[in-house]
Amino acid sequence: MSEDPIKRTDVNELGEFGLIDHLTRNFPVTRLSTLRAMGDDAAVLAGQQQNMLVSTDMLLEGIHFDLAYMPLKHLGYKAVVVNLSDIYAMNGTPTQITVSIAFSNRYSVEALEELYEGILSACKKYNVDLVGGDTTSSLKGLVISITAIGFADGENTTYRDGARPGDLICVSGDLGAAYLGLQLLEREKRIWMEHPELQPDLEEQQYVVGRHLKPEARVDIIKQFRDLKLVPTSMIDVSDGLSSELFHICKQSGVGALIEEEGVPIHNEAQLLALKFQLDPITCALNGGEDYELLFTVRPEDEEKVKHMQDIYIMGEIKEPEYGIKLRTKGGNFHILKAQGWNHFE
Amino acid sequence: MSEDPIKRTDVNELGEFGLIDHLTRNFPVTRLSTLRAMGDDAAVLAGQQQNMLVSTDMLLEGIHFDLAYMPLKHLGYKAVVVNLSDIYAMNGTPTQITVSIAFSNRYSVEALEELYEGILSACKKYNVDLVGGDTTSSLKGLVISITAIGFADGENTTYRDGARPGDLICVSGDLGAAYLGLQLLEREKRIWMEHPELQPDLEEQQYVVGRHLKPEARVDIIKQFRDLKLVPTSMIDVSDGLSSELFHICKQSGVGALIEEEGVPIHNEAQLLALKFQLDPITCALNGGEDYELLFTVRPEDEEKVKHMQDIYIMGEIKEPEYGIKLRTKGGNFHILKAQGWNHFE
Repeated sequence: MSEDPIKRTDVNELGEFGLIDHLTRNFPVTRLSTLRAMGDDAAVLAGQQQNMLVSTDMLLEGIHFDLAYMPLKHLGYKAVVVNLSDIYAMNGTPTQITVSIAFSNRYSVEALEELYEGILSACKKYNVDLVGGDTTSSLKGLVISITAIGFADGENTTYRDGARPGDLICVSGDLGAAYLGLQLLEREKRIWMEHPELQPDLEEQQYVVGRHLKPEARVDIIKQFRDLKLVPTSMIDVSDGLSSELFHICKQSGVGALIEEEGVPIHNEAQLLALKFQLDPITCALNGGEDYELLFTVRPEDEEKVKHMQDIYIMGEIKEPEYGIKLRTKGGNFHILKAQGWNHFE
Repeated sequence: MSEDPIKRTDVNELGEFGLIDHLTRNFPVTRLSTLRAMGDDAAVLAGQQQNMLVSTDMLLEGIHFDLAYMPLKHLGYKAVVVNLSDIYAMNGTPTQITVSIAFSNRYSVEALEELYEGILSACKKYNVDLVGGDTTSSLKGLVISITAIGFADGENTTYRDGARPGDLICVSGDLGAAYLGLQLLEREKRIWMEHPELQPDLEEQQYVVGRHLKPEARVDIIKQFRDLKLVPTSMIDVSDGLSSELFHICKQSGVGALIEEEGVPIHNEAQLLALKFQLDPITCALNGGEDYELLFTVRPEDEEKVKHMQDIYIMGEIKEPEYGIKLRTKGGNFHILKAQGWNHFE
């Protein structure tokens, strides 16, 4: 008999403290501000003059991710990236994270190693240190809770409430592709469950699938802000969809907004796939979510600076509050945007 | 027909953002360092010269708590306290927390309000601000993930690795009572499940039950350290049991230790209940856990200062590493302590 090609070590062989030591043994400490990482009651970080930013997120199996098509390594990577994205959305620099996980007894040490490989890979790419967290059991499924810590100068810290009428509404990258990638993966999963002999072929849709499985946080945009000495008047990252995020900015800033359909960036592959799925591409872009792009507003006098930025699109303009929040279609019609979905105006 | 006396509002009536706004509407911001609490991509805290401390913990229903005897309000309170305890164990002052919760559809808005009432109560008592977090669904049960943030001067920050041979081993309060409280509650639950008509009577065991259901973090000890200008050489909080915590200190400091059974503080009610349950009181104290007392070491020349502290007991002495970790019983016998449980030496 041949040996099982996949090694499966029970987590109980290592014990709680052994497990966390084992999983985090390769994590380097690269930030000068990390005075003490794992292994004490709390992590110790050096004090800074800058504002400190703290963001936290919890992801649950069966709610936020499906391991049928999400490899554990990608999951670990994505779980870190979505938290870092929140720090960038404050115009800050993430420096440390803590990671707590709970998992049922169907997870082996090898499975958890894969998860931590993804976490490590994100830590390296974004230059953040893992400084704390714990591992515990769950009755069912995997739970990941991550807290990201970062810093920003007082004058750079960008909130959601600073947008003013006349400001330009901008977005990085493109929108809707992560949602379409998820739709495609869900469809392939259904097909596979009915016909396990069929292998999914996602070759032609690498872009949208990648957008869902391995999103990146836009550190490059934050760097461009620094180089251009440009401070947005408001900013948020696109996790729930453009409409929803725009609503947060408008509500907290006490303003209205007009978005031009023409200005909303949609990747060609997403456009084609939306049509194939009989979905309206602009609806996917407005309500899709999980793009982790940066939605921000700038003063009108900063228009030239924005035009020099890489991968930034001006989509519209902030209006007086009584204007409401509207979309002008390519055909020139106005629609009222809703936090989720949008309805015909008149 | 009379109306249901217990109001049950479905969480979907409020929506995700409505729910978190609703649950946190009464939380005040009292710390000057809290520049922005809830409602943006990240909380914003003012920079400080002091070291920043970060500690995180995740609690799962069915693993860490049983709602059959743990009221939600107490659970919220305890979940905060155990995290603050980690910051005190670094000789620091907690200032902010983030709270993320995941819950299944059997939780109503009213149930979550109770949980947040307990969280608020702990925030007020310990003067910390709630500055972030989220609410999400779970397929099963309740998950609470809390991150506590605090500060400590560089010279006060107390790690686990500073204990040196000759140092005195001290502990606050008393040990083992929380464990016995849990045993009692578990027993009453079993009785109640077999005989639902019987009402549990816990009147005579208020102390041990309270130690399990509503532990406190020892901020008073930290204040005494400041007043006496006393900095422990090492410190940890007792969450897994005295033996286990002592092992962490010895391992990280590279030392051995001798504990005198006589010096281990055990509450009279815990002592009596242990005997009633045919348990050895010292075993409960050594391995019980969840006491959230502070275990610390001080230099021998600080003995007088420690003797002037309220509610502090000197239990033993740090030894050279080759000595190992031992307990001397009241009868004068030596036992080798193990991280969990202890075995007869010879």
